[in-house]
Amino acid sequence: MPAQVLGGEQKAVTFPSMRFFFLLTTPTAIQGAWKPPQELMQHLRALRFGVDEEFLLLGASGEAWRARCLDRHSIELLGATQAPSMALHRITLATAWPKGKRAEELVLRACEAGVGQIQPLQFARSVAGRQAWGKKQAERLQRIAREACQQLRNPHLPQIQAEPLEFERWLSAVDPQNCFFLHPGAPPLADLLADANLAVEKVEIGSGKQPGTTFVIGPEGGFTDAELLAMTKAGLTAAGLSPLILRIEAAGPAAAMIAQHASTAGVGQKK
Amino acid sequence: MPAQVLGGEQKAVTFPSMRFFFLLTTPTAIQGAWKPPQELMQHLRALRFGVDEEFLLLGASGEAWRARCLDRHSIELLGATQAPSMALHRITLATAWPKGKRAEELVLRACEAGVGQIQPLQFARSVAGRQAWGKKQAERLQRIAREACQQLRNPHLPQIQAEPLEFERWLSAVDPQNCFFLHPGAPPLADLLADANLAVEKVEIGSGKQPGTTFVIGPEGGFTDAELLAMTKAGLTAAGLSPLILRIEAAGPAAAMIAQHASTAGVGQKK
Repeated sequence: MPAQVLGGEQKAVTFPSMRFFFLLTTPTAIQGAWKPPQELMQHLRALRFGVDEEFLLLGASGEAWRARCLDRHSIELLGATQAPSMALHRITLATAWPKGKRAEELVLRACEAGVGQIQPLQFARSVAGRQAWGKKQAERLQRIAREACQQLRNPHLPQIQAEPLEFERWLSAVDPQNCFFLHPGAPPLADLLADANLAVEKVEIGSGKQPGTTFVIGPEGGFTDAELLAMTKAGLTAAGLSPLILRIEAAGPAAAMIAQHASTAGVGQKK
Repeated sequence: MPAQVLGGEQKAVTFPSMRFFFLLTTPTAIQGAWKPPQELMQHLRALRFGVDEEFLLLGASGEAWRARCLDRHSIELLGATQAPSMALHRITLATAWPKGKRAEELVLRACEAGVGQIQPLQFARSVAGRQAWGKKQAERLQRIAREACQQLRNPHLPQIQAEPLEFERWLSAVDPQNCFFLHPGAPPLADLLADANLAVEKVEIGSGKQPGTTFVIGPEGGFTDAELLAMTKAGLTAAGLSPLILRIEAAGPAAAMIAQHASTAGVGQKK
C-alpha cells in the first residue's frame, strides 16, 4: 500500500512478521520432528498452517525455535533463532481483584494494553482476591495471557503474580515515581502523563528492571481515606480516568491503554 | 475526604448521585404503586434497595420518575422529575462487526468508553455483520447496553444501529471532520486529537446533533487498498492506536476511551 494513501508520515512499526506460539515444555532437540503439546497442535490446525509456512516457538526463558507443520500431529523444528521483541512501555497494574470470570477479562484486557506485570493487591474493602489462587486458576489465567498475546502478536507475556500482596506491604516497597492511583475527580491521567517521561523500550523478557509506569486500582467500594492518605504520603499521584464508574477489569487496562498509547505519541514524551 | 489528600486540584465531576434504571415500558401514572417489569424488580432486589432509598426510572424519550421499593414485587412512583445528564464527548464507532459473543463484548466496552452511537459497517473483507441482526440479538445487545450504562452511571444509552451499512454508502454521507480510521503505522491518535478541538458537552438524548468524533474500524483482514484510498479522498484521517493487533471489539472502544479521556484533559483541548 503506498504511503501517500495514509495522508501522513508513517512511523516504523516494530512487528514480529512471523507468527509465534508460546511453549510450556521445552523440545528435547533444536532440530528434527517433534510432537508438540496437544493444545499447540490443535491451534496450528485451527489456523490452517501449511507445510511451507514457518512459525516460531517461544520458550519460557527467552529461547526461540523456527518450526513448520509436518502433518496433523507433528511439527519439524528448524533450529534455534533469536526471540522476537516488541517496543512497549513497561506498565504494571497493581490492582484489586475482580470476582470469578471477571479476572479472566482483566488478564485479557491487560494483555491488549501491553501490560508487563499484574500484581493483585488486598485493600481494606477488597471482596475477591484475598488469598492466592489455586493451581488451576493460575493455569487458566496463564493460558488466557498466552492465547491473547499470540493473537496480539506480543512476544512478551505479562508476569501475573498469583499471590496477592497486602496493600500496605506493597506500598512500603514501591518506587513512587510514575506511580498513579486511579481516583474519581483527580486531574486527568493524560495531563499527568504529558509531564512524565514515558520511555518506550524493548522489553527484555525476565529482566529485573523496574516497570515504567504503575497504576493502582482500588476495589469496587473505592480506597479508604487511610489508603488514600498513605499513597499520597508515599509520593504516589492521583489520576482521573473517566466520569463513568468503571469496574476493576475495565479501569486498569483503560489506564494502561492510555499510557501505552501516550508513550508512542508526542503528548506522552518530554518536548 | 479532604481535597489535599489527592495532592492536586480537583475538577468538578458531574455525576448523577442517585442510582437510575432504564425502562422499556412507560408507567401508566406518574405517582402511586406500580408493578415494574420482572427484570427491573429482580435487579432492585439483587442490589438490596431499601424502602427508604430513592432511585430514578428513565423512560425511552427522556422522561424520569423518582421511585422507591415498596416490597419484593412492587415499587412506588414519587412523581416526574428532570432526567440526569452527564458531560461526555460525542463518539461514534463506525465499525466492522465481530462474530457471535464478541459483539456483546463490543457493546459493553463501547458503553464503558461513553460511546454515543454504534454503526455497524460492511467492508469488502467483512465476515460477520453482513446482514441486519434479528430481533432477539438486537434485544440482547440493548439489554447489555442498559445494564452496562446503569452500572457505569451513564444516563445516556448508546444508539446501536441494527442495520449494517455498506461502507461506500456510509462514507458518501459522513462528515470527514474529526473522523479517523484506525490503521497500523499511522500517526498516533493522541497527537491527532491534540490538534482537534474535542468538545465535552451535555449529551442531549435523542438530539440530532452530529457526533463529535467518529472512528472507523476495519475487519480482521484489514481495509482493502480501495477502502483506504476512498477514506483518504473523502478527507478522513488515518490514526494509529497500538503496535499490537487488536480485535474489532477491543480496537474501537480503546480509541473511544482515549478520545473520551482526551476530551477531559488539557492535551485534548485547543490551548
